[in-house]
Amino acid sequence: MQIVFALYEGFTPLDAVGPHEVLSRLPGVTTVFAAAERGPVRSDGTLTVSADAALDELDRCDVLVVPGGPGTREVVLGDQRYVDWVRRVHRTTRWTTSVCSGSLILGAAGLLDGLPATTHWGARKQLEATGATYVPERVVTAGKIVTAAGVSAGIDMALTLAARIGGDVAAQAIQLWIEYDPRPPFDSGSLPKACPEVLDFVTAHLATG
Amino acid sequence: MQIVFALYEGFTPLDAVGPHEVLSRLPGVTTVFAAAERGPVRSDGTLTVSADAALDELDRCDVLVVPGGPGTREVVLGDQRYVDWVRRVHRTTRWTTSVCSGSLILGAAGLLDGLPATTHWGARKQLEATGATYVPERVVTAGKIVTAAGVSAGIDMALTLAARIGGDVAAQAIQLWIEYDPRPPFDSGSLPKACPEVLDFVTAHLATG
Repeated sequence: MQIVFALYEGFTPLDAVGPHEVLSRLPGVTTVFAAAERGPVRSDGTLTVSADAALDELDRCDVLVVPGGPGTREVVLGDQRYVDWVRRVHRTTRWTTSVCSGSLILGAAGLLDGLPATTHWGARKQLEATGATYVPERVVTAGKIVTAAGVSAGIDMALTLAARIGGDVAAQAIQLWIEYDPRPPFDSGSLPKACPEVLDFVTAHLATG
Repeated sequence: MQIVFALYEGFTPLDAVGPHEVLSRLPGVTTVFAAAERGPVRSDGTLTVSADAALDELDRCDVLVVPGGPGTREVVLGDQRYVDWVRRVHRTTRWTTSVCSGSLILGAAGLLDGLPATTHWGARKQLEATGATYVPERVVTAGKIVTAAGVSAGIDMALTLAARIGGDVAAQAIQLWIEYDPRPPFDSGSLPKACPEVLDFVTAHLATG
């Protein structure tokens, strides 16, 4: 079973690395980080990762993971090759997934029209513009398409998927191995829980970054 | 404020990327991925990331993050340069932190002797061999040293640290931005919660990997 993480300039690292940490531990899978060209791919910050395959070298995969990040804007607006590749490879997948605003790329490929889906809370209007119905949940499954909410939600998505692929015991064992027994020191991880002061900070320092 | 993520061959990606996703969003910080040499650093799997600085180019930092992973074994046993660098730079830090078995490196540098600390559950005996007292918690603070439990615990550690550095509102805003409102599909993320079947799977497929 081949799992492809399809990167582009400006992706958010945790969107890809979270699911990779889970899915790569399933027995019998191989994982590939791919991008338009082989070689270094700059994320949305200081992290640069290596793509070990060019997208055009891959004409199929079993599981596709499309991360989000500020770079989705350029992909959706101007990288028709990436969007076409997603549409083409989707025909071969067992599961097509996205994390965060990666769902906007699935939407641009025409894969979400009329389907329930999720995304980063800040991208919900853009998601609906692709024809999807935004659902404010961590993980939304519609047939073989699985979308996750913002950034860290990719870990929950991947555990859900790991159970579908390898069974509940495998998923639980991976959860134990990555010690995913979360204890956030605050309870501010979703829009309804955030106070006005926190929202002001997001607007001033994060949403523009 | 400079935050250094000190990588080595065989580190576990989420150990570094989880905290980076949180800490890099604090206003006024710069983050650097460093390793023995500049250039590509292979993780414990298929992911390769770029080190933008050599450790020897950095003689101080404000926050040091040491990730864990199977590669800690080689660092502790045979990479005296890395261990010496950690000991030296620790004198200059405001916070010295580790994720997962990264604490074994802090221990090898002599930084944990007599202190409470945590690590991946599978490395607790090795941690105690460094003179630390293992505490089975997600995040353990001892003076300026903050250790996190396995892999995903680095996110909780980084949010705790973000609050100490930038205040509660900043930490909560980052939590909202990365939508860290975890909903694991199972409750198997720590040793006391795991059933025998799950532990058998870990032994057969994960602990050796």
